[in-house]
Amino acid sequence: MNAWSAEEFEAQLRSIGEKRYHHLHPFNERMHTGLLTEEEFRGWVRNRFYYQVNLPVKDAFILTKLPGRDDRRQWMQRIIDHDGRTGDEGGIEKWVRLGEAVGLTREELFDSDTVLPGVRFAVDAYVDFCRRKPWLESVASALTELFAPDLLSRRITDVQRHYPWIATEGLEYFRARLTQQPKDIAHLLDLVLNHAKSREQQDACVRALEFKCDVLWSLLDSVELAYSKSAR
Amino acid sequence: MNAWSAEEFEAQLRSIGEKRYHHLHPFNERMHTGLLTEEEFRGWVRNRFYYQVNLPVKDAFILTKLPGRDDRRQWMQRIIDHDGRTGDEGGIEKWVRLGEAVGLTREELFDSDTVLPGVRFAVDAYVDFCRRKPWLESVASALTELFAPDLLSRRITDVQRHYPWIATEGLEYFRARLTQQPKDIAHLLDLVLNHAKSREQQDACVRALEFKCDVLWSLLDSVELAYSKSAR
Repeated sequence: MNAWSAEEFEAQLRSIGEKRYHHLHPFNERMHTGLLTEEEFRGWVRNRFYYQVNLPVKDAFILTKLPGRDDRRQWMQRIIDHDGRTGDEGGIEKWVRLGEAVGLTREELFDSDTVLPGVRFAVDAYVDFCRRKPWLESVASALTELFAPDLLSRRITDVQRHYPWIATEGLEYFRARLTQQPKDIAHLLDLVLNHAKSREQQDACVRALEFKCDVLWSLLDSVELAYSKSAR
Repeated sequence: MNAWSAEEFEAQLRSIGEKRYHHLHPFNERMHTGLLTEEEFRGWVRNRFYYQVNLPVKDAFILTKLPGRDDRRQWMQRIIDHDGRTGDEGGIEKWVRLGEAVGLTREELFDSDTVLPGVRFAVDAYVDFCRRKPWLESVASALTELFAPDLLSRRITDVQRHYPWIATEGLEYFRARLTQQPKDIAHLLDLVLNHAKSREQQDACVRALEFKCDVLWSLLDSVELAYSKSAR
């Protein structure tokens, strides 16, 4: 099969997000319409934290295989954005503050023994994907970022409106991501669109993005099953 | 067997360096006494570059397995020291300038096809060690850093004295390492001495350090064999 042009390829990638990104998940829709109980919201924050703490690990695996220094320089910023550095607390710490804002302790968040098994399997599968796959596919699995800014800005607005018991400082993680993500997305698209030249590579990138949508979706499935008893 | 105390353990590690670190290699001794020809010096710089460009890769593998955020924050500085960031060219670029000072081009340096096979095998074995081994042993393989400051400061003095054809700006890499390395060494000793508690773990760290000494030694063996024809 012929390779897609860069424009067609990007359109294919974006169409996956319209159909499979977790903004469509019933649990997420209930979050945005204000229907989550405190227990459900807390359950989501606590379990999604396991995803958050694993982001720098999957990014370090990608760092081990990027073609060279210039791409590593840019990709490393993702690790810094989550782990932080001196004078910059980082995204993991901001997520701890979201946890505290919904009534969780730092100890509960970092206790990986109490993560829901389905969440652990999904997140571990994601890290393992980035460990095993060629760099192009590992990088392509981050393409869910294309769909994040819309969701993030709606989330800030909707959570403030519907969950007044959550202190607004708890939402700092989402605000920070809104400013960090545009340059991540630009680098990501640059890597994927310029290196996936054959149709086989493009298809592999599509599958990587679908896989990653499944990771995020499955995480919400597990949270919904465990915490949304009355909703089902 | 009983575990060593931290003091005994550190003494064991230091005694390995006294016997097996590459400061004792004949090629290195000839470098410091001014006996290398231009071709030999150039051959060393060119082949050692393959080691330099692989340092951020092995450090990224270590990043994937360190216990948590605080250790990653510190270890990440090693990657930045070599890859650089905006406004900081980094160690790889400084080594390119050393290469240019001895008559090599950037293209020759980055052409991994012309690296000596023995150098490639040794460096690749080192990266693979850091990929495969538990974090404690991967980290312990960096303990050759304990012995580097002495060698680095002698190297700056001796190269300036014996090889006046090498512009002094070419030695910036070694000067930068002298200021970067003390905090790397402090973190490294902290990790190894505080986490290798059983004698089995301590022995594994000793073997990791011996392995790493062999990597550096073997690199010089290959360079000597290829470039020091008259010296043998």
